[in-house]
Parts: sequence; C-alpha cells; structure tokens
Amino acid sequence: MKTPAPHAAALTVLIAPSGFKESLSAEEAADRIAEGVTDTMPGARVIKLPMADGGEGFTQALVNATGGRVCPVAVTGPVGQPVQAFFGLLGGRSPRTAVVEMAAAAGLRLVPRDQRNPMRTTSYGVGQLIRAALDAGAQRVLLGCGDSGINDGGAGMVQALGAKLLDAQGQELGAGGGELLRLHRIDLSGLDPRLARVQLDAAVNWHNVLLGPRGVARVFGPQKGATPEQVVLLEQALENWAACLQRTTGSAWGTQPGSGASGGLGSGFAALLGGQLHPRFDIVMQYLELDRLIAQADLVITAEGSLDDQTPFGKVPAEVASRAKKRGLPVIALTGTLGHGAEINLKHGIDAFASMLSRPCTLDQAIADAGKLLRRSAADMLRMVSVGMKLGRAPRRLALAR
Amino acid sequence: MKTPAPHAAALTVLIAPSGFKESLSAEEAADRIAEGVTDTMPGARVIKLPMADGGEGFTQALVNATGGRVCPVAVTGPVGQPVQAFFGLLGGRSPRTAVVEMAAAAGLRLVPRDQRNPMRTTSYGVGQLIRAALDAGAQRVLLGCGDSGINDGGAGMVQALGAKLLDAQGQELGAGGGELLRLHRIDLSGLDPRLARVQLDAAVNWHNVLLGPRGVARVFGPQKGATPEQVVLLEQALENWAACLQRTTGSAWGTQPGSGASGGLGSGFAALLGGQLHPRFDIVMQYLELDRLIAQADLVITAEGSLDDQTPFGKVPAEVASRAKKRGLPVIALTGTLGHGAEINLKHGIDAFASMLSRPCTLDQAIADAGKLLRRSAADMLRMVSVGMKLGRAPRRLALAR
Repeated sequence: MKTPAPHAAALTVLIAPSGFKESLSAEEAADRIAEGVTDTMPGARVIKLPMADGGEGFTQALVNATGGRVCPVAVTGPVGQPVQAFFGLLGGRSPRTAVVEMAAAAGLRLVPRDQRNPMRTTSYGVGQLIRAALDAGAQRVLLGCGDSGINDGGAGMVQALGAKLLDAQGQELGAGGGELLRLHRIDLSGLDPRLARVQLDAAVNWHNVLLGPRGVARVFGPQKGATPEQVVLLEQALENWAACLQRTTGSAWGTQPGSGASGGLGSGFAALLGGQLHPRFDIVMQYLELDRLIAQADLVITAEGSLDDQTPFGKVPAEVASRAKKRGLPVIALTGTLGHGAEINLKHGIDAFASMLSRPCTLDQAIADAGKLLRRSAADMLRMVSVGMKLGRAPRRLALAR
Repeated sequence: MKTPAPHAAALTVLIAPSGFKESLSAEEAADRIAEGVTDTMPGARVIKLPMADGGEGFTQALVNATGGRVCPVAVTGPVGQPVQAFFGLLGGRSPRTAVVEMAAAAGLRLVPRDQRNPMRTTSYGVGQLIRAALDAGAQRVLLGCGDSGINDGGAGMVQALGAKLLDAQGQELGAGGGELLRLHRIDLSGLDPRLARVQLDAAVNWHNVLLGPRGVARVFGPQKGATPEQVVLLEQALENWAACLQRTTGSAWGTQPGSGASGGLGSGFAALLGGQLHPRFDIVMQYLELDRLIAQADLVITAEGSLDDQTPFGKVPAEVASRAKKRGLPVIALTGTLGHGAEINLKHGIDAFASMLSRPCTLDQAIADAGKLLRRSAADMLRMVSVGMKLGRAPRRLALAR
C-alpha cells in the first residue's frame, strides 16, 4: 500500500539561505541544506544561491558572481588594533568597481568580547579601505553595510578620508561614538579630492534610521555591547552628529532610510562623501541571479540564524520570500531560533518555518553543531513536504477507496 | 498568485500520541497537537485518541473507554513507604474485569530520586492491588506493565499474594531484586486460592525479556538507578530467579517474550500466578478504537517524548504507525528529542518526524514548556505539509505556466 512520493524526482528546489552568525557562512548553509534535501529526495534538482546582504560575505559573493578579485589591505580595526582587511574589484564591469564591506574593517566580529563598547569603537578602517580602493583606480566604490561593531555615524571613516571633526575649542575628536557628543564643526576642506570624481554607492538595510525609537543606537547598541546608559548617550551623540551634518549640508539625515545603517555610517557616507544609499537587496540582486533562478524552481528554501518579528525588516528570508511570492512559489524558512512573533513572517511570503534543533542544548552547542543540525532539519522538513505532496496529489484517495 | 491550501478543509487528522514522560499526559499531548493542527488548518477535522501502553495512564484510559471506575487502595510502595494506589473496574464487561497498573504501586515515579536502587525496590504493592481486585469480586485481572521502578522479577508481588520465597536456610527473602541472589526454593502452598479461579492477563512490551544482552537488568537497570556493578548483580539475581522458576514450573522463562516486562515482573506473573502475557497493544486496541479511527483519517500524527532507534521496539509511535500503514496512511511523529538512529523509524511506517524544540534550552525548560512547544510544532509541521499539498496538487504547475 506504500505510495511513492510523487514527482519528487522532478522537483526543483532553490536554496537561498543567509549565513548563520558565528557559525555558518551562507555558502556552508546552502551546502548543508542541499545535502539534507538530497538525503530525502535523491532525485530532486537542487540550485544553491548563498545570499549576501551588505554584511560579512558581501565582497566575496559579488567577486564570485563577477569573476573579480579580492585585494588585501592592512587597516586600523574598530578598537585601534591592526586588522588585515580587504576590498574587492569586480570582474568585467565598467566603471571599474571596488566593493568595500564595512564589516571587514569595523565588524562586530573584530571587537573582542571584553571590549564591546560602541562609545569607543571606530569606523576609521572603513575610510582606509575606501582610500585603498581609490588608490587601486576604482571609478565606483560600492560599500556594503551590515554586521558592524561601531556606532560612530561613520565619523572615523570620514576622518580617515581627510575630514576634520572639531570640538568647540577647534580640537579634533578622538575615536568612537561617544566623542560625537563634543562635535561642534565639520571641516571638509581636507577631504580626498578623488571622492568627488567617483561614483559612491552603499548597500544598506533600508529600515535602519539614525535617530528615534527605531534609531540605530536603541535597536543595535545593546548587541554591540552598549549598556542602557550608553544607549542614551549614543542616541544623544548621534543627535548632535545629525545636527552638525545638517549645518554642514543643509539637509536633514536623522530619519532618511538607511541613514542608521552600520552604526549610522550610512549618514556619514551620504551626507559628507556624497554617496547614494540603496536598499541592500536592490544592489545584491544586480549581481546574484535570484529572480532568474526563482523562475526555474518549484520550491524555495531560505534560512537564517533566527527568525522572529524583525525578519520582515529587510532580512534575507523576507527578501527571498517576497521575490519568490511574485512568482507564486512556496517558501520554507529554516532557522536556529524561532523567536518572538515569528508568525508575522507568514504574512510576508514565508509559507512554513521550523527550528533546526533536535534536542535540548545550549546556544554554544547549537552553534557548534549548526551544519549537522541544518542538514538534518532540511531532510526532516522535506519529509513533511513529501507527506503533503502525497496528500495533495491524492486528496482523500484512501478514504474514498475504503 | 497565492494558491489556497488545497483540501485542507476536508482533511481528517487522527492524533494518537503517547504521554511525554514527566511533562504531558497522553490526553494533554493530544489536546496540544489538536490545537496546533487547528491553528494551521482551521477547517481540518481532528480526531483525538490519546494512546496508552501498559504503563502510567493504562487504567484511566481503559476505564474511560468502557465507562468504568477507579478504586483507591492503600499499598506498600517500592521503597516500603505507604502509597495511595488504585485499580480500575471496567464498565459493561463480562467477565467482571479489574485493571491493575503496576506503575500505580511500584512505578519509577514512586521511587524518590535519592533512593533509586533496584537492588532494594519491591513490587510488593502490585500483589496488594491484585488482592484488592480479587476482594472486589474481579473474575478477570488485567495487569498493565510499564514505567516500573523495580527489578525484582515480581518477587514482591507473589509474596504479597502468599507465595514463600526461601533461601538455603529456609528463611524468607526480604525486599528487592538483590535478594534473589539468595533464592533457593519457592513455596506456592500459601498462594491466594482465588488466583486459580480467575483469568489473569498482562499487557507487556513483547520485546522485553528477562535475561541476556537485551535482558531487563541490562536495558532498564541503569535508568532505574542501578550502577554498572549492580546491573551485573541484578542480572545474576534474575538468572537465579529464572532457574528457580524453572525448577518450580518445569518451563524456561528467561527469553520468553514479555518475561522481562516491568523489571521481570512478567516472568513471576506468568510462571507463578499462571497469567497470560500479551503484547500490550493487542490489549490496548481491544479497548481503544485505533483501527476504526484510522479508517476515517487522511493523516495520522503521533508523538512521544523521544524518538530514537528504540522506538520500533514496541513504543507508541511505532505501534500507531504500523497500524496506519496497513491502510496506507501517512504518519508524522512529533517528539521532544530526536535521538540516535531516529531514521530507522522511516522503515517502520513513520513518514516524517520532527523535534518540537524551537530554540536552545535545557531539558527542564523543554519539560516545563512541553505543551506550548508541542502545539507550536504541530502548527509548524502542518504548514510544511500544506506546502507539500500545494506542490503535490499542482506539480510543476508554476514552472509550466512560465
């Protein structure tokens, strides 16, 4: 009486996960999910598309997609330490485009856990990366935002590029978001003149704004190590930063979409360097072929380390799901932690979700076993889908036959 | 382009879970799963059948199914303490049938954690329950085995019913499995004479045997608190018990199916009281209407606290699945812990399984949240099934339409 899973051999599954913070890169996540799918449906056609946002992996993903190359650069890290960072040069493009991933020079991963204090951490190394890209002849610089460990509004970045940030006594500010409390005047006369001649674009989370209840200090300060008291100070510091930006440029930046990206670095990039901010997936999709691959698929599987009520605000699973839904495709999301309000994602194109955990464990164990858990969970969930395929293909077949 | 879930309104889901040890009764598990199914498929028809095996809940399940009643009895517990236990009288049956659940008088739950030593724990109270059932006029006694905290072969039980267990000096043995090392002779002359006139049946796990590599001391001794050294002694004690049983009855009991049930109590019940052992689900199914309900269902959901390579050996999910598969029905198993070798269950009628966990947590947290987790997991898995139903109903519909 056993019925074979119908059409499993003909199913095309597009696997488009994010990376899992602190455990799996997007490439690794895609590989593990693909293995799980094949474990359950050996005949399924699997297409892997590891997803990048503007954060870690952005450079590599765009370099891979264009046949470009990665160029190493030594910079000053977020706590002042030497860091071996990099930028990318995209292949076969005009204008000559450099990709700068801010996390490579000022990412949270570069801030030792015992020094996670966004009052002090700086984006200085990001400016150094941009300068190196200009030295390499870039005609366009594409800045990726995400996974930052700083909250300085991009102050360090613009200082590294020649801007002077002065207090009321005309003294230059030191490093870190806390210093912006003392900012009085911005002097752009020393800015690298090449910046005016190149195209500057940034891929940002469109939902991140500089100030207010959803401002970057309040929303992201704590996960970068800020205490509640520091969150208040950082918000005040960014308010002063926004006021100085407005005096300097004549425009208001506090609630511009993307102005809060990467600890407010979006605001400095746009206001002081003249860069354009873009929703990050508008940029990513110019290089990754998600829409073309969706057109070939029957089912989409996406994934991220956690899935909750913040996911619809520009996270990979929501972005993948919204594009899949334009083609009417079903979307499954796998995750480590199913967090508060995850059901909201059912209204944003995700049809089903599941945690990959299989037994009680600590977060550290889950991180250590993430690859194995993700593979197993993908296999488990595809079996649930197979049960549904059987039911959908022969609704009440068995009941009617009785 | 969104397609409604096909036939979800017409789907009939049979929910037949076990209880979750130390957290949810089978009734509670069935309720939570039913809520989760309805959360995802409000139009689905849900049939709940909380499953009993011979262990905790056996009496109540059979009493519920027959409209019988539960009778309280004070007995001596597994560590000699007074215990308020019970037996059941089934409704509307001939012969007048009493149900005795051994766990009510000698269950692991009745052994305080700091006294878990199966060298010492006794099944004496089980014999007292049988005696009380006879006092109540039972013409048939149906003994449920499972969830025991003892390893005495049923020695205490038969002592409570009048048998004398003597050492080489003719002295009566004390309580506990360790005493059987000294057993020399069994004197049945004082056995309650009513036992010879009633029908004695026991519902046992058919896979449990008294001796050998899969014998009860080795397989279950450790979870009852036996040290590795005690496991060796308990095995030797049961070997002596089996030898004495053979001298007394002329039959060998060490590898009879079910002889190892409930710390070997199956062997004493069969050899010395003349009881018949039955695979526990053969008994349970005489009272619960699983087969009839399977015939009405499109999909079966079962559940147990853990799912692993031991599940096929007579656990509820395996038993439910094997019966569902005779009708070709798909079966989903939900669980707390997906343990070692869980995939073996795919060969025993379970089509898909999943852990109900949704984030890193301790075992105690999982137990405390079990109801909520089970409901959520049922909802999550039904969404996976819905994705499959859509795919199964319109395989490659979208691809072809493009």
